[in-house]
Amino acid sequence: MRAAVYHGNRKLSIEDVPEPSPGKGQVKVRVSRNGICGTDLHEYYDGPIFIPQEPHPLTGKSMPVVMGHEFSGVVTEIGPQVVNVREGDHVVIEPIYRCGTCRACRAGHYNLCSVIGFHGLMADGGMAEYTVVPENQVHKLPDQVPLELGALVEPLSVAYHAATMGEVTSDSTALIYGAGPIGIGLWFALRSMGLTEIDVIEPSQTRRSSIEALGARTIDPTTQGVPALIADRTNGEGVDAAFDAAGVAPAVESALQCLAERRPLVSVAIYDKPLSTPLLQLVLRERRIQGTICYTSEDYRAVIRLMAEGHYNTTGWVDTVPLSTVFEQGFEALRAGRLMKVLVDPTR
Amino acid sequence: MRAAVYHGNRKLSIEDVPEPSPGKGQVKVRVSRNGICGTDLHEYYDGPIFIPQEPHPLTGKSMPVVMGHEFSGVVTEIGPQVVNVREGDHVVIEPIYRCGTCRACRAGHYNLCSVIGFHGLMADGGMAEYTVVPENQVHKLPDQVPLELGALVEPLSVAYHAATMGEVTSDSTALIYGAGPIGIGLWFALRSMGLTEIDVIEPSQTRRSSIEALGARTIDPTTQGVPALIADRTNGEGVDAAFDAAGVAPAVESALQCLAERRPLVSVAIYDKPLSTPLLQLVLRERRIQGTICYTSEDYRAVIRLMAEGHYNTTGWVDTVPLSTVFEQGFEALRAGRLMKVLVDPTR
Ligand SMILES: [Zn+2]
Ligand SMILES: [Zn+2]
Ligand SMILES: [Zn+2]
Ligand SMILES: [Zn+2]
Repeated sequence: MRAAVYHGNRKLSIEDVPEPSPGKGQVKVRVSRNGICGTDLHEYYDGPIFIPQEPHPLTGKSMPVVMGHEFSGVVTEIGPQVVNVREGDHVVIEPIYRCGTCRACRAGHYNLCSVIGFHGLMADGGMAEYTVVPENQVHKLPDQVPLELGALVEPLSVAYHAATMGEVTSDSTALIYGAGPIGIGLWFALRSMGLTEIDVIEPSQTRRSSIEALGARTIDPTTQGVPALIADRTNGEGVDAAFDAAGVAPAVESALQCLAERRPLVSVAIYDKPLSTPLLQLVLRERRIQGTICYTSEDYRAVIRLMAEGHYNTTGWVDTVPLSTVFEQGFEALRAGRLMKVLVDPTR
Repeated sequence: MRAAVYHGNRKLSIEDVPEPSPGKGQVKVRVSRNGICGTDLHEYYDGPIFIPQEPHPLTGKSMPVVMGHEFSGVVTEIGPQVVNVREGDHVVIEPIYRCGTCRACRAGHYNLCSVIGFHGLMADGGMAEYTVVPENQVHKLPDQVPLELGALVEPLSVAYHAATMGEVTSDSTALIYGAGPIGIGLWFALRSMGLTEIDVIEPSQTRRSSIEALGARTIDPTTQGVPALIADRTNGEGVDAAFDAAGVAPAVESALQCLAERRPLVSVAIYDKPLSTPLLQLVLRERRIQGTICYTSEDYRAVIRLMAEGHYNTTGWVDTVPLSTVFEQGFEALRAGRLMKVLVDPTR
C-alpha cells in the first residue's frame, strides 16, 4: 500500500509499504481522510522532535514512521479479542498511547502521561491507505457525521478541551486570540456551549474572513485597541475567559488586560520561546494563565456528539489533497499560509 | 497626638495632629503596634502611588495622610450605633474599604473591589497614637493573641489567602520562593494546613537562617539546581504547589519546572515589570499561574484562629521601633535589608 513515510528532517517520501494486519485487540482501518497539523510541519521542517529514534516504550516503534495522527476511516478487519468494533464501522482514531500507571494516567489525565505516544508519530499512522490501531483508541462515528468531518475530531478535541478549561457558562463572554484551526475549533466549541458573546482577535484579513464566514465576530488588533474596545463593551468589567491560540506576546498582553477578575487566560499555543508576560496583571485581579494540551476520550465523545448535532462544519477552512502530492499541496501550502487546514486523501 | 504624616514623595514627618473622634458606626483605637510593609516603602520612595491626591471615592480623603495599614490596638471609644465592639477590646483592623456594589464585591471578592481603599493610604492610619475605623473593619483578638502578633494579621492574611489559592491538602508538597515576610507567612499558613513537605528557596543566607530558625527546610538556589533536586525528591512527579513571593524571573522559571501536572504556581509578588515567562511549561503539563492579592475577612478570621492555636510566632524576624525614629530605624533599615519586618510602637 502507499504511505507517507518519515525518514528524518525534511525527508518524507511516498512509498509502497506492506499492508498492516491487525493483531490481538487491534483493528485495521481503511483511512478516509488524514489531517496535517502544526506538529507534522514541525516534525518535517525542524524534527525529528516526537518521532523516536529509539524504540518507543509503549509502541516499540522508531523511525522510519508513517506520519498522520488525525484521521477517520472504515474498519476493514478486526483482530482477535476485539469486542466493540465491527467491520464496516465508520470510525475516528484517538491517537494517544498511554502507560496507564503514571500519576497523570491514574488521575484520568492521560493526555499528560509521562511516557505518552501518538499514533502517526510513535506508531505507523494515517497518511496511508491502511493503518492498524488498538481497539481502545477507536471511536465510532454516527451516521450523521461524514468521514471528512470525522477526520477533524482530533484537532477539534484539542480546542474543545481548551474550551472546557475556560470554565464558562452560556452567558459568559469570551475572547479568542488567533483564527487558525484551533481558534476556529474554540469558536465552534464555545458556541456549542451556548456562548453568544465571543470576539475573535486575528490580524490576518484572510483568517478573519474565514471565521467570519462561519458566523464569528472578529476584531483586527492592528487597527483597533482591543483592551479599550472590550472595556467599553463590558462596562469596564472585562470578559469571562480568553483563549490564546496565537502564541505571541501581544496576544498574551492584550488578553490579560481584557479579563475580568479571577478569570482564566487559557493557553493552547505552542510557544517556541519564553514570552515577556505582565504577571502583575495576574496578581492585581487574581487572574490566571491556564495551560492546556490535547484531550481525553471525554473530549472526543463530546465533539463527536456535537458534530452529530450539527455544531461543526468545514466550510471555507478545510481543503483536501491527494496523498501523492501531500508534500507540495499539503506541507508546503500550509507552511506558506496558502491553506489553513489540509486533509489528505490516501486513495489518490 | 503624634502621627507619621505622608506629604508626598520622600516626605514623611512625625507631627502633632488632632486626635480623631469616632463618628456613627466608628470605633476609636489606641494603636499598639503598626507594621511597615513594602507598599509603605514604595509609597515613600516612589510615590504617591496609592495615596490619593484627589478625595478618594470611598473615604473622601486625600494627601496628607497618616500612614499605616497593618495594626492592632485597644478600643478606647465607640461611636453611635456601634454594636459589636466594646471599649477595652483588643482588636486588629482589616484596612480594606470597599464599594459593596461592583461585580467583585457582589461576588464576595472585595479584595478586588474596583474602587478599593485602604486605611492608612486612603484614610488616616495606624502610624499614630490613635486612629478611627468603621466597626465592620474591626476583628477582635482573643486573649491568647498578644497585640504584637496581632499587628501581623494583615500581612499574614495576604500570605494565608495565597496559600488557599494553592489548593493543597495536608499531604501536598510545596515550594515557596522567597523568605521575606510573605514567604514566612506562606510557610506558617501551609504548616497550619498540615503540610510537612515544604521547601523554601531563598538565595540570601540571612533570610534562609531566619526561616530555618522557625523550623523550615530551605534550598539555596545559587548552589543547588532546584528542578533537578525536586525531580529527585518527588520521583520525577513534581510538587503540588509553588508560591512565588520573590517576583523574579529565575523563581518563575524554576517553579514552573518543579510543578506537577495540572498544579498551580501562585503569584503573590508585585512584579515591577513583565518577566520572560516560559509559557510552554504551562501548556505541556496543563499547569497554571494564579495571581493573588490581599485577603477578605475569611482569611483574617482564619489567621486569628490559627494564632490563638499557636501556629504563628515572631521569633527572629520581627523588630519593633519607636514612632519617633520610624524613618531611620524603620523605612531605611527595611530598604537596606538590615531588618525583615518592622513594627512601629506609637507610644515611643
Ligand atoms: Zn495534530
Ligand atoms: Zn501514563
Ligand atoms: Zn502592607
Ligand atoms: Zn466594590
